[in-house]
Amino acid sequence: MTEKEKMLAGLPYDAWDDVLLSERMRAKAICHQFNLADPTKLDERAEILKALLCIKDHVNIEPNFFCDYGYNIELGSNFYSNHNLTILDVCKVTIGDNVLFGPNVMISTATHPLDPIERLSTEYGSPITIGNNVWLGGNVSILPGVTIGDNCVIGAGSVVTRDIPESSVAVGNPCRVTKSI
Amino acid sequence: MTEKEKMLAGLPYDAWDDVLLSERMRAKAICHQFNLADPTKLDERAEILKALLCIKDHVNIEPNFFCDYGYNIELGSNFYSNHNLTILDVCKVTIGDNVLFGPNVMISTATHPLDPIERLSTEYGSPITIGNNVWLGGNVSILPGVTIGDNCVIGAGSVVTRDIPESSVAVGNPCRVTKSI
Amino acid sequence: MTEKEKMLAGLPYDAWDDVLLSERMRAKAICHQFNLADPTKLDERAEILKALLCIKDHVNIEPNFFCDYGYNIELGSNFYSNHNLTILDVCKVTIGDNVLFGPNVMISTATHPLDPIERLSTEYGSPITIGNNVWLGGNVSILPGVTIGDNCVIGAGSVVTRDIPESSVAVGNPCRVTKSI
Repeated sequence: MTEKEKMLAGLPYDAWDDVLLSERMRAKAICHQFNLADPTKLDERAEILKALLCIKDHVNIEPNFFCDYGYNIELGSNFYSNHNLTILDVCKVTIGDNVLFGPNVMISTATHPLDPIERLSTEYGSPITIGNNVWLGGNVSILPGVTIGDNCVIGAGSVVTRDIPESSVAVGNPCRVTKSI
Repeated sequence: MTEKEKMLAGLPYDAWDDVLLSERMRAKAICHQFNLADPTKLDERAEILKALLCIKDHVNIEPNFFCDYGYNIELGSNFYSNHNLTILDVCKVTIGDNVLFGPNVMISTATHPLDPIERLSTEYGSPITIGNNVWLGGNVSILPGVTIGDNCVIGAGSVVTRDIPESSVAVGNPCRVTKSI
Repeated sequence: MTEKEKMLAGLPYDAWDDVLLSERMRAKAICHQFNLADPTKLDERAEILKALLCIKDHVNIEPNFFCDYGYNIELGSNFYSNHNLTILDVCKVTIGDNVLFGPNVMISTATHPLDPIERLSTEYGSPITIGNNVWLGGNVSILPGVTIGDNCVIGAGSVVTRDIPESSVAVGNPCRVTKSI
């Protein structure tokens, strides 16, 4: 398997592999262009994102936006993220239709071993899925492997470490369901 | 009522209304100019902020700074915010004199319904008031409708969901008073 | 004592002293240059950081990065920080070898008195030490005076208010040890 195949399969891989480094540099360059673009040119900014992400149709992301590869991020219709979204997409990040993010959301598929010796050379990931009609409040962190069901609302500042079933309101660190909608 | 009047009154409104979109684009453009300005030109940077915010006198905000409209943000004397302040000001944000913010503070007057069908088309806000001599630590989130009394200290990483009475130290997610000063 | 000597000694000092202001403006200018640099020019970006920080050898910091002085930040070998690192280095910040930071980490040596009258004119700091082989998750805040021992893993969204002994996994706000590695 190539390092890229290992990465996408959730296996330990070498992030400094030539192919992955080159793909990451491409994504960082496009993010840089996006973050420096005139914020009033909505169409131009949407075009830049189309070169980076898998977009169904309309998308609106406020700067600054950072990601690792971009091609692993699949956005449904009518996606809106407020300022300072960071997505570490070493594995697939699938986001449904009509999803809203507050400012400073962090989504990370990337993780490392707890053992410090193994950690020196090992990185791997786990995919993240966010359903339709989900609203993430500001400063929410979504950790590797998490699935958030349709219609959920995740309160500001939550750290989501486990799956959240559909139609839940969930808050806190770690994030727990407080009611059903 | 116009969409702007509805927004300012805390009623559901259409954020893609022509007037509001144009005012938001103006604010985003000024924030962009501010964030790209030479950080050593303190006077020039203060002038840019004067075109955006309601400022009593001296103000110092470290980049990056983002907001929605700017004209809803009223800053007292001697305001200082560290890096990466985001204020979503669809309703009034009133900040007293001698207020200090740590890095990555998020203040959001904007909210949405919990019902996913209503959320598709509904946004509204609630004003936020921060008293005199308040210190917010880094990574603090202030949610819609909150009032923080004079002389309060809010610990780093707190998510403030309810009013905090004056002269309190308060911490946590959700933020709770731990002592009086 | 000069204001700089007071600052470095952890005593109350005047941050608007001429020397300190000038040193801070130099650091802010270099951070600005770093944040606007082409993200694909890894060597050029590493050179910019060398002018700012005390670096042992290889270092990789994703933009945006902000700090106060730079010369108080000592980085071990093989340091990697993901996007949006902020370090308020009014006192020494010592970081060991093979350390990894997730996105949006905030490290602050700077603090203020709880008393609102004293706070008007008083700022001081306390040094922070992070050991070898430490991994900080995304959105972690490290507060003044904290020491984190070798081999620790600090979970995403944690607010570290007290020392963490070596080889610990610790999470939460406030951050508490949940297991030994």
